[in-house]
Amino acid sequence: MAPIDEADAMRRAVGLAARGLGATSPNPVVGCVVLDAAGEVVGEGWHQRAGGPHAEVHALRAAGERARGGTAVVTLEPCDHTGRTGPCSQALIGAGIARVVYAVTDPTPTATGGAATLFAAGVDVAGGLLADEATAVNEAWLTSVLRRRPFVLWKYAATLDGRIAAADGTSRWITGSQARADVHRLRAEADAVVVGSGTLRADDPHLAHRDAPRPDVPQPLRVVVDTHATVKPDARVLDAAAPTLLCVGRDAATGHLPGLDVLRLPPARDGRGLDLTALLAALHDRQVRSVLLEGGPTLAGSFLAAGLVDKVVGYLAPALLGAGPSVVHGVGIHTITQALRLDVADVTRLGVDLRVTAYPRTHPAPGVLEES
Amino acid sequence: MAPIDEADAMRRAVGLAARGLGATSPNPVVGCVVLDAAGEVVGEGWHQRAGGPHAEVHALRAAGERARGGTAVVTLEPCDHTGRTGPCSQALIGAGIARVVYAVTDPTPTATGGAATLFAAGVDVAGGLLADEATAVNEAWLTSVLRRRPFVLWKYAATLDGRIAAADGTSRWITGSQARADVHRLRAEADAVVVGSGTLRADDPHLAHRDAPRPDVPQPLRVVVDTHATVKPDARVLDAAAPTLLCVGRDAATGHLPGLDVLRLPPARDGRGLDLTALLAALHDRQVRSVLLEGGPTLAGSFLAAGLVDKVVGYLAPALLGAGPSVVHGVGIHTITQALRLDVADVTRLGVDLRVTAYPRTHPAPGVLEES
Ligand SMILES: NC(=O)c1ccc[n+]([C@@H]2O[C@H](COP(=O)([O-])OP(=O)(O)OC[C@H]3O[C@@H](n4cnc5c(N)ncnc54)[C@H](OP(=O)(O)O)[C@@H]3O)[C@@H](O)[C@H]2O)c1
Ligand SMILES: NC(=O)c1ccc[n+]([C@@H]2O[C@H](COP(=O)([O-])OP(=O)(O)OC[C@H]3O[C@@H](n4cnc5c(N)ncnc54)[C@H](OP(=O)(O)O)[C@@H]3O)[C@@H](O)[C@H]2O)c1
Repeated sequence: MAPIDEADAMRRAVGLAARGLGATSPNPVVGCVVLDAAGEVVGEGWHQRAGGPHAEVHALRAAGERARGGTAVVTLEPCDHTGRTGPCSQALIGAGIARVVYAVTDPTPTATGGAATLFAAGVDVAGGLLADEATAVNEAWLTSVLRRRPFVLWKYAATLDGRIAAADGTSRWITGSQARADVHRLRAEADAVVVGSGTLRADDPHLAHRDAPRPDVPQPLRVVVDTHATVKPDARVLDAAAPTLLCVGRDAATGHLPGLDVLRLPPARDGRGLDLTALLAALHDRQVRSVLLEGGPTLAGSFLAAGLVDKVVGYLAPALLGAGPSVVHGVGIHTITQALRLDVADVTRLGVDLRVTAYPRTHPAPGVLEES
Repeated sequence: MAPIDEADAMRRAVGLAARGLGATSPNPVVGCVVLDAAGEVVGEGWHQRAGGPHAEVHALRAAGERARGGTAVVTLEPCDHTGRTGPCSQALIGAGIARVVYAVTDPTPTATGGAATLFAAGVDVAGGLLADEATAVNEAWLTSVLRRRPFVLWKYAATLDGRIAAADGTSRWITGSQARADVHRLRAEADAVVVGSGTLRADDPHLAHRDAPRPDVPQPLRVVVDTHATVKPDARVLDAAAPTLLCVGRDAATGHLPGLDVLRLPPARDGRGLDLTALLAALHDRQVRSVLLEGGPTLAGSFLAAGLVDKVVGYLAPALLGAGPSVVHGVGIHTITQALRLDVADVTRLGVDLRVTAYPRTHPAPGVLEES
């Protein structure tokens, strides 16, 4: 293989890291490319699942003796602590790596320090290469570390006039097959998928992912926010395809739902349903680092009003309905100057539909957050 | 100047034609480039205003004797009839043009036949070059010929959740300055701008265009659809900046509005306001070939329900409101399978906003219409 430069190696490492999305929590996704002294790729690896070897270890194993005197290009600062696996800093030193190039500094107090350890051992260390790309692939984990709660991505599918269902409640299918397949990718990348009781009643959704690019990506935890435990025992969300967590109020009767994983939550401070900060804290305790909020409009309104949405992905179908529920309601905004403004990061055409990716101004992407 | 080929000349001619948008009705926009025998551009012209010389005449004048033996590249089949100006076919023959290349056939019964006349005079004639581009620049006029009513472009500005105003009715400014400037371009290109009485009361809009690229583009006719003549004598839409037409019901009292141009219309068949087909017919009689429908949601709903919208331009601001009126209502759609589907022709980022341009499936662009 022809030699490649460190930036190209980092780009590859970011792509490798992405393969771990949805499978590594509570850990970050990490990719690593090992180059020999001549700049040839001699090993590649990524962190495939929590508890499994880190990206560096996979890549060093693949490289074997050819790692000696070479460069390790890695998306996150190599860890310095002994968790379920040994510290990567030591593994790199032991393999005779001469130079380590990483993109993003590890912000966790326990894992950080890898760069200093490597430096002290005489390894040439450089940080910050392609930091934006590496931050983007790890935005969920980085945000969860910064905010001490799971990253929340709210997705919706709507017509151009902002309707998420028709007047009679029907919504299958607003968007086309490519947009729907993209939602399955988001589910596969998330640790948990959350819906409200209204959506449960209207759509009886299943919420598991199908046709994920990597069949071994675990199913997300399906979370239903249902104050009065109205979910029917035969609801599709309760089947065996994926684990399910039913979130109910303190005195909801759940006797008709034996064996179900039930989480009792306090009421929201404004009295509208359950306390969502408590919900996210409980999910964080269960190792959930990324949440895909799939609606509906009432629950999304509460998340937005509480400042708990970190990213928005809207699928816009080129269609008009002129009636039916809107994308979101009840954010508590009365006049135009209070509008919740977002920054559009990307617009992509998916078949006939558009996908708009945006970040609320109050919750910029982690890279932006670190700068300010 | 270096010689250019006929396709490049046609691209130039389309650009020249566009300069006439908003100023030529009831005529089409037309652009013309004259090449000498060596392929050098020796004359350019466009139809600048109704009653003025046609594009070919401007271009031939600029070319003078250098047109002899040359090629005329023109966006529309040269006319064959003596209207307010003489037939272009004769002007081309008289100037000694050896070859005429045009993009789109003239569909009007009175003007058509130019190609045949040229051919009979021994001129080499070819049609269809860059027909799509030339159709697009003339879509309003071509549609008005096909449908025997003005072309209707509905524009709206909304948040990502499809709100066109906040809960308290405020809507200034949902979109940023670039999107607003683009609306002024649409106004300059339109013969008439239409709003309903609800928008009039909520926003007291002015509806004239400002800062048009060509200062001599005439102002559009401002049309207010106001069944009971509720418009206040000091409304901004009644100032002297542009002409205004007030459309009212048969028995509306208009005594408080002396000197105003008033159009009395029958009621809509469904009883909701005035008959919009009658409105468009009356505008057509007044030489209006393109209408910019600026809302609001109730009037837009009636236009859509009647199948009277030919093109949609939506400005989407990356913002959320969670309350307030939606883009459109009252289209008469109850279930998702009845959704009015559109084809997205273009998505452009304008500053922080997005502009989505789409065509209702039932009303494809004129080019598509001709094929089917
Ligand atoms: N196109 C899309 O992307 C999409 C996605 C999802 C849903 N939908 C559509 O959305 C519609 C249903 O939406 P919806 O608004 O009725 O239901 P929803 O947002 O799914 O659920 C709202 C319900 O969740 C419960 N809840 C508990 N805690 C809450 C809190 N803190 N804040 C808000 N709600 C809380 C409340 O009921 P209890 O307190 O009684 O439990 C509330 O009424 C359906 O038509 C569905 O098809 C569309
Ligand atoms: N963001 C944007 O792009 C944008 C653009 C425009 C307006 N807006 C907002 O839209 C809101 C006003 O909208 P609106 O829906 O109340 O008013 P509208 O659509 O401007 O006007 C509706 C009114 O027009 C009259 N009308 C006459 N013939 C009609 C027909 N055939 N079909 C429908 N209506 C007919 C009716 O009242 P009468 O019969 O009593 O006359 C009807 O109530 C304001 O908040 C404004 O800010 C936003």
